[in-house]
Amino acid sequence: MKLEGVVQARKRAARLLDKAHIAITPQEAENIEVSDFGLGDINNLGLLVVIYENNDRYCAKEIVLLPRQICPEHRHPPAGWKEAGKQETFRCRWGEVFLYVPGEPTPNPLAKIPARYKEYFTVWKEVVLRPGDQYTLSPDTLHWFQAGDKGAVLSEFSSTSRDENDIWTDPRLQRLPKID
Amino acid sequence: MKLEGVVQARKRAARLLDKAHIAITPQEAENIEVSDFGLGDINNLGLLVVIYENNDRYCAKEIVLLPRQICPEHRHPPAGWKEAGKQETFRCRWGEVFLYVPGEPTPNPLAKIPARYKEYFTVWKEVVLRPGDQYTLSPDTLHWFQAGDKGAVLSEFSSTSRDENDIWTDPRLQRLPKID
Repeated sequence: MKLEGVVQARKRAARLLDKAHIAITPQEAENIEVSDFGLGDINNLGLLVVIYENNDRYCAKEIVLLPRQICPEHRHPPAGWKEAGKQETFRCRWGEVFLYVPGEPTPNPLAKIPARYKEYFTVWKEVVLRPGDQYTLSPDTLHWFQAGDKGAVLSEFSSTSRDENDIWTDPRLQRLPKID
Repeated sequence: MKLEGVVQARKRAARLLDKAHIAITPQEAENIEVSDFGLGDINNLGLLVVIYENNDRYCAKEIVLLPRQICPEHRHPPAGWKEAGKQETFRCRWGEVFLYVPGEPTPNPLAKIPARYKEYFTVWKEVVLRPGDQYTLSPDTLHWFQAGDKGAVLSEFSSTSRDENDIWTDPRLQRLPKID
């Protein structure tokens, strides 16, 4: 990604957090993690994250989603033989999130995926999260999500994040593409 | 505690969460964990908690503090020989929190403790948390905190909570007194 695009995405994320009445420090605002997964289409596929804490026992993040932005399908595999894959709880703080997990596909799902990406979205059981709603995902479970029309803020509480281990259904995706 | 007092405290907590723009479900509002530590003085010593998730890997809670309410001094010891004491990150979401940890006592601390409880407060290094500020506490470390004049909402991200293990400096305290 170009640094300019990263800086602009951080500003958009900060504005959504402000709308959601979620306070972050100026230093956190400058360090919002921005990813377009290397595809250069951040308005559709992207992830903006404020990492509050990530230690060897637990992790807490605020995920900001631009309007209709998608976090593509992936899973968190076991980290070595001693640690199960990352387990995570998503709690909607603001806006609306359409989360998809394995199971009976939901007819007429609320998410909208551009046709060119559709083959990389394989689980379609829908969980709608509105402010105050939450969902806990078991380790190593395929999932993806999209924000509704005004964007969303989603708290993630989890075991340790080891993003480099994530397995993406679309093999082109990189969790943290190089910034230049 | 009397059920009537618990119900009233839950309503006060829900109002503060509303002021802080933090959404909880009606079911969560009905289940806010209320403790006066068995001393019957909840306006001074008390803890109101929305437990979002507590599993065998991580825990996330919203702690609501009434104006000037104190969570008394305690620590989280190891749970058996395999698990270190609870590690926790406090993040202020709304209001102001005065947190105290071991170290050089802060001159003129902002907390105010009623004289009758003072002997049970032994650590006085002050950390002031305002919205967006956070502090991570090592396992098994003495700590206590008080809200400022308008109350506070504090997110707690942590390893698994095992409240029954907590060790309180004031031996009279019970984390979850009986409700009748």
